[in-house]
Amino acid sequence: MASSTLGDTKIHELAKVPLKEPILVQGLPGLGYVGKVSVDFFIEKLKPKKIAELYSSYLLFPDGNLGINISEDGTYSLPKYEFYAYNEREPHAIFLTGDAQPSVTGQYEVASMVLDYVQQSGGKMVFTMGGYGTRATGDVGSVYAVVGDSVLGERLKKLGAKLAKGGAVTGAAGVILGIGRQRGMQCAGLLGATTGVYPDIEAARAVIQMLTSVPGMPLELKDLDREIDEMRKKMEKFRRSDTEESGEGEEKISEEDKGRYIT
Amino acid sequence: MASSTLGDTKIHELAKVPLKEPILVQGLPGLGYVGKVSVDFFIEKLKPKKIAELYSSYLLFPDGNLGINISEDGTYSLPKYEFYAYNEREPHAIFLTGDAQPSVTGQYEVASMVLDYVQQSGGKMVFTMGGYGTRATGDVGSVYAVVGDSVLGERLKKLGAKLAKGGAVTGAAGVILGIGRQRGMQCAGLLGATTGVYPDIEAARAVIQMLTSVPGMPLELKDLDREIDEMRKKMEKFRRSDTEESGEGEEKISEEDKGRYIT
Amino acid sequence: MASSTLGDTKIHELAKVPLKEPILVQGLPGLGYVGKVSVDFFIEKLKPKKIAELYSSYLLFPDGNLGINISEDGTYSLPKYEFYAYNEREPHAIFLTGDAQPSVTGQYEVASMVLDYVQQSGGKMVFTMGGYGTRATGDVGSVYAVVGDSVLGERLKKLGAKLAKGGAVTGAAGVILGIGRQRGMQCAGLLGATTGVYPDIEAARAVIQMLTSVPGMPLELKDLDREIDEMRKKMEKFRRSDTEESGEGEEKISEEDKGRYIT
Amino acid sequence: MASSTLGDTKIHELAKVPLKEPILVQGLPGLGYVGKVSVDFFIEKLKPKKIAELYSSYLLFPDGNLGINISEDGTYSLPKYEFYAYNEREPHAIFLTGDAQPSVTGQYEVASMVLDYVQQSGGKMVFTMGGYGTRATGDVGSVYAVVGDSVLGERLKKLGAKLAKGGAVTGAAGVILGIGRQRGMQCAGLLGATTGVYPDIEAARAVIQMLTSVPGMPLELKDLDREIDEMRKKMEKFRRSDTEESGEGEEKISEEDKGRYIT
Repeated sequence: MASSTLGDTKIHELAKVPLKEPILVQGLPGLGYVGKVSVDFFIEKLKPKKIAELYSSYLLFPDGNLGINISEDGTYSLPKYEFYAYNEREPHAIFLTGDAQPSVTGQYEVASMVLDYVQQSGGKMVFTMGGYGTRATGDVGSVYAVVGDSVLGERLKKLGAKLAKGGAVTGAAGVILGIGRQRGMQCAGLLGATTGVYPDIEAARAVIQMLTSVPGMPLELKDLDREIDEMRKKMEKFRRSDTEESGEGEEKISEEDKGRYIT
Repeated sequence: MASSTLGDTKIHELAKVPLKEPILVQGLPGLGYVGKVSVDFFIEKLKPKKIAELYSSYLLFPDGNLGINISEDGTYSLPKYEFYAYNEREPHAIFLTGDAQPSVTGQYEVASMVLDYVQQSGGKMVFTMGGYGTRATGDVGSVYAVVGDSVLGERLKKLGAKLAKGGAVTGAAGVILGIGRQRGMQCAGLLGATTGVYPDIEAARAVIQMLTSVPGMPLELKDLDREIDEMRKKMEKFRRSDTEESGEGEEKISEEDKGRYIT
Repeated sequence: MASSTLGDTKIHELAKVPLKEPILVQGLPGLGYVGKVSVDFFIEKLKPKKIAELYSSYLLFPDGNLGINISEDGTYSLPKYEFYAYNEREPHAIFLTGDAQPSVTGQYEVASMVLDYVQQSGGKMVFTMGGYGTRATGDVGSVYAVVGDSVLGERLKKLGAKLAKGGAVTGAAGVILGIGRQRGMQCAGLLGATTGVYPDIEAARAVIQMLTSVPGMPLELKDLDREIDEMRKKMEKFRRSDTEESGEGEEKISEEDKGRYIT
Repeated sequence: MASSTLGDTKIHELAKVPLKEPILVQGLPGLGYVGKVSVDFFIEKLKPKKIAELYSSYLLFPDGNLGINISEDGTYSLPKYEFYAYNEREPHAIFLTGDAQPSVTGQYEVASMVLDYVQQSGGKMVFTMGGYGTRATGDVGSVYAVVGDSVLGERLKKLGAKLAKGGAVTGAAGVILGIGRQRGMQCAGLLGATTGVYPDIEAARAVIQMLTSVPGMPLELKDLDREIDEMRKKMEKFRRSDTEESGEGEEKISEEDKGRYIT
């Protein structure tokens, strides 16, 4: 009984939603959790429909291990990407969130699978959101843009973004932009300056505001300030409950260790 | 003379035993050796029949190297998983023990092979046993459960388990639960709180007791205390002989180094 | 929807140029950036035509991550190799430069792809340029040669090269020489002694001079000194602008970190 | 132009030599270089004919990099295994030496290729030689045996070997024993106790003496002491020339760094 190739990357489609040239908006765990906080905010606010999940043996925890995430009710699941479709107004969008990044070995495979899926839905444009490391707290609130072509760069500059000059974007946010551009898609990365605090709500707020200002984006957030405030309160509550729980005999989990403390 | 794909994961079937919906009970080396000590206890006590061995180029030593394990008589073998079948009473069970964990790269492949094998035998339920890191010695004796669905969670809570809240289960114990759930199997992890002492007999005892209490499990251990005592004595004897041996000119082997000191 | 093999190594041919037994001259990022600075100098000076690009999921940043490089105008691209063809005079040459080295896993595949491409163009000879670690600043300016056969070694010695004695050449510069020799190609590595300063212009200068002296090489650099001076000035200007920029609120990027500071 | 699978493990056969059930005697770089020094001694002494070379993208330098080894005359080659056939007297033997170990990922593939080759020549028995870590200098000179079956163990004990009790043999010496036993071959490892000094001539001497005593081995070394003395002198000379050379401006290479100092 020999093994066949297992553990590959697979997308499970959950629902079919009619989409017209949807824009992919990706936010995954990374520096300051800027990307993930941002996309999760859109998902909570716009309530798009969940259409697919991606599973992969390459979706590792930040410490490089494989395993399952446990929910607050004791149930669990494998790390995954989740795709949400928004088609109430044009332009349509696919929001991509997740609870892990692929390993280096799997970055190309996972990013290519995501783009296959988006292109099959007619998608031609990719926005990734993430963090941009800075040590100057005064720079938090700035959004640095990297762009596939300079026309898009000018457009984003007019909206207040700074163009990143040199350097690199590593990880899932970078790889999907690189492959997307090779496929002839319009691509841009919106990177919120962050000192790396986890999660960096201020940086996420700047990225969210920038994305809502892109002409044609299906998002008009009138009460961003109030929304951000609510998000901040939730985060603080989440942190407090963490601290209380750890008084009950459980191992105190530092923020870095979160999500990988059981063997 | 070119190479073909070698070093894959293979299951060598040793015997055919009629099984009716056997429950997979897995315990592999990990935190506090809780899982392995627990499953080895069942195997010693119930004397199930060995039905298969799994070999894989992904079964590494804890330090990430490949090699062979040496027995006390100088003979050796490659790291392996061993499957034992119990069918004296219902529910039937397959006990899975082993002397290594797969590397991250091989976790999906090995777990999938194991589940293929169990499902071919009609299996629909998976229990994995392992350790749950705690710094509070007072918590040792607690069993934390992670479950595929909340009905099973309620059942385990009634038996005295606490539901794990958040966090993650990494390694083989987690991955097989994740894939098992995706395949629609009933799955639960029983994690004994441990400070990481090696091997943690108290944590294993709590896990063993919990599993014997699951209604329908084919195990009625009347003399668990006496059995645990004997196991503890064996372990202590094993440790003493270690210490004596190292006085004879051999390298003193710390517990962490055990099993990987020859090149 | 299952994944197919993605992220492989691919060469995109951009132009067909008639070539007669072109010599491959490779210079990639490495110790002191000697190889890359050298080949980029030839490309700037001889203005050969760009004929192909190589992309690969194995082309990693120096820190082992995947991602995209950002240009000064905010646009980006995946790490790549670039092939330039020179056919104005004989012998013809293919210059290979790039902004990354393959990972260990991909070294054989990438080097084999490069040699396939060069052999299809009729190439039979390979020169790689790189750095040779020394702690003695007095040795900078020496060029150490490693050769596929001793006849070529004698030829290079007459031009002033020292033959390397023992040791190893690791990375892309070494692997392509190893595979090239196995294929029966004439191969040599020219390694400029460097203390590892980045970029080491003096070491590159010695390697450039050595290569221009190889009889039959299509390069007669009359004003090497002036050219090197201009290159040095450019580098210094580039460094200064770096320093100024980092005063504007951005993270100060140490030289080691360059090109991988955004996530 | 897409890539095919490259960089695999390949055996290049150089000569056909009639062999009758040859014993494989393997010695590769490892702890104290005991295995490699031992097998190289047999090759120098018995002058067997070189019959094959094995190349693999998995044959890495000790620091995990790929590259080429440079000879004293400036020529180079990829790391390789070398097979030598001895058929002057029975039992015939294939001696396997090399200048690298496979990476963990390649251990199974490389060991399987070697055994395929040996079995095609009619081989049924495998001896690997290596080092056995000890901190007690008084133990140097002991040979620890690991055996596929206890009959062979008894035979080796009569010749003065100690049976290893517990622990593990990692790396190429262990993996080939493991796979060989699975294929039903007679296998033993002879491990010379070593404090890890490089190279450990005393440990190698003990292993050589043990192997020459195995009844039926085609080796009667009358002057082992003299031979060992000569080998020791060569090693010392080699070390002295190292030290002298490094005075001439080259980087001083510590013993650990040998063979990987150029990039």
